[in-house]
Amino acid sequence: MAEPDDFVVTPYEVRGKIDYTRLREQFGTEEVTAQVLARIHHLAGGELHPLLARGIYYSHRDLVALLDGYANGRPFFLYSGRGPSGPLHTSHLVPFDLCVWFQRRLGIPMYIQITDDEKFWAKGGLTREETAQWGLENLYDILALGFDPKRTHVFFDSRSISALYPLAIRVARKITFSNVKAVFGFTPSTNIGLVFYTALQSVPCFWPSWAEGRAVPCLVPCGIDQDPHFRLTRDIAEGLGYPKPALLHSQMVPGLLGEGVMSTTGGRTDDALYLNDPPAVVERKLRAAFTGGRATVEEQRRLGATPEICSIWALWRTRFAESEAKFQEITRTCRSGELLCGDCKGELIERVHKFYEQHAAARDRVKSWAESTIVTSAPKPI
Amino acid sequence: MAEPDDFVVTPYEVRGKIDYTRLREQFGTEEVTAQVLARIHHLAGGELHPLLARGIYYSHRDLVALLDGYANGRPFFLYSGRGPSGPLHTSHLVPFDLCVWFQRRLGIPMYIQITDDEKFWAKGGLTREETAQWGLENLYDILALGFDPKRTHVFFDSRSISALYPLAIRVARKITFSNVKAVFGFTPSTNIGLVFYTALQSVPCFWPSWAEGRAVPCLVPCGIDQDPHFRLTRDIAEGLGYPKPALLHSQMVPGLLGEGVMSTTGGRTDDALYLNDPPAVVERKLRAAFTGGRATVEEQRRLGATPEICSIWALWRTRFAESEAKFQEITRTCRSGELLCGDCKGELIERVHKFYEQHAAARDRVKSWAESTIVTSAPKPI
Repeated sequence: MAEPDDFVVTPYEVRGKIDYTRLREQFGTEEVTAQVLARIHHLAGGELHPLLARGIYYSHRDLVALLDGYANGRPFFLYSGRGPSGPLHTSHLVPFDLCVWFQRRLGIPMYIQITDDEKFWAKGGLTREETAQWGLENLYDILALGFDPKRTHVFFDSRSISALYPLAIRVARKITFSNVKAVFGFTPSTNIGLVFYTALQSVPCFWPSWAEGRAVPCLVPCGIDQDPHFRLTRDIAEGLGYPKPALLHSQMVPGLLGEGVMSTTGGRTDDALYLNDPPAVVERKLRAAFTGGRATVEEQRRLGATPEICSIWALWRTRFAESEAKFQEITRTCRSGELLCGDCKGELIERVHKFYEQHAAARDRVKSWAESTIVTSAPKPI
Repeated sequence: MAEPDDFVVTPYEVRGKIDYTRLREQFGTEEVTAQVLARIHHLAGGELHPLLARGIYYSHRDLVALLDGYANGRPFFLYSGRGPSGPLHTSHLVPFDLCVWFQRRLGIPMYIQITDDEKFWAKGGLTREETAQWGLENLYDILALGFDPKRTHVFFDSRSISALYPLAIRVARKITFSNVKAVFGFTPSTNIGLVFYTALQSVPCFWPSWAEGRAVPCLVPCGIDQDPHFRLTRDIAEGLGYPKPALLHSQMVPGLLGEGVMSTTGGRTDDALYLNDPPAVVERKLRAAFTGGRATVEEQRRLGATPEICSIWALWRTRFAESEAKFQEITRTCRSGELLCGDCKGELIERVHKFYEQHAAARDRVKSWAESTIVTSAPKPI
């Protein structure tokens, strides 16, 4: 039996081989069961996003009540965010891909937070000019995934502070240094910007309710590592008179180097596919990526490979196998030994090239309206 | 010899009988000497404000260098603030009275910060509506003291956050929880708003330099109790590329009840004259105020009274004896026994009534332009 400490998952650290079932039990969240998926499938008009169908979104808080409300004429809104410390990589798309799908199927509003202040506070090596510029670049990438300009609202922290601050003042009074210390592992040498920051990250959960003067439910799709943050948000929600945000948690996408979670922290840039990687770099990274294959072709033909540990299979699973049939075929032929890693990588490289081309074009198109989505004023004076 | 702990002076607590000389030595500040006063007198065109002439502003940091700069064609600006937790009382006017005088004599800009966010964080019993409303009421009172609409700029925190936040982001990265814990005595149960707040209070010291892209010196007249706060500001100034603010420290005004410093914390509303007290309340409070008089008229005639411990004398000294001759006469006749406390109070009551009348009229006049002084946008994007 595994020891409780062979993996660590917090908003500022993910380490070790994660047992997702045990993590869900540790955090005390609910399972995304077949019944929950059937419910979403029904409400979404007979469709299920691959990230749901393939079990990547596997855990939740209060999702059933949110869906009940939706079924009874009480629409919710979506909220997700991005800390702009550099270019996006493909695993950053996991929450936004799901949000685009929800927005399109249900016609609901999306709120995106770009935390250029928080990244400046969290990453000593970045200048303000850099976090602001990455914020804009990241925003273009996110919007280009297919968000509806009319239903998408962006809090770009340094530029939206007038809109956020009046509510952040109320939120901040409810949270102590002890609270953030417990959740984020802050120490006395943490800067006071980062200490304050969680107030601003909670605000979007409540903002539409504040603006509209009625309870508007919120759904936050996020990595399971972000759950502790939103537990804090949920704890203070009722005291402020707002509904607790519902959460939908994804597993972490493994990195190309085959260790834990996709992350380029510490300069490990080959662990991830950046959206601004040129085709030759994409090809080099994928050719070098860790797979679940065997030592020799002969052995693989005979024994088959192991998709569950393969970084290439993870990419097919989270984004690049668009149809269920395609995904099942890759998984089956990988396991049986019919599909060899070289061929599988070759096919994925083609898919990624195609996506990057389409994405670059979509990204150019959103630039004409991206600024119009940034919220710059508060709905009420205080 | 007095023990080192028979008085406590921090930004959040003032207690005991303060030995101002020793406090200055503890804090390591410089003395406002006769030479410094002569310098100000000269630069101000042959005039000295009573608060300077009577030794209420008695301590400073870097004031001489600031005056040298001014003499060499390098003007400075003034900065002071107010935490709007209720109506102003007369001791709150000490920094602003001096600033009006400096602004008029030297023609320099004044920046006023109204910290309606901080008071909400610091005082659990106040609502946001209350701190915002008191902020506006207090601002009218402050502007009515005679500030020049063309040279006066107000940071009303919740409304000026767009202007303040870009610089606050940079400031906040330089300050740790340890720093604010040491300065303000914060504990793990302090809310994260208050922890962050010092960043916003430092911003006005640097704002004109940021806006103008050159070093603009700053003078902060404040109670000596606020020195620890601005020490933190001074410590981070150079790392941000801005000049350290110079400070000019006042002694604390004793309360009407004769204990330590004028303060209405804990509901001791009879300790202070509020600017919105009706005439009958002013009269009642002053008639009941603690004096330096003797037990009987006979004794007072014979032995004289003690102005230094008298709350009425403190009011003459800090504001209501407009001429030096008047102030000297009161002091002399009090000490000699010629002036009895009842007569002295009667004369002060007349003066206060007259000031309140003039002030109410001035306050009505500033309402037409007060809003125009509130800064609502940043001079630069980041």
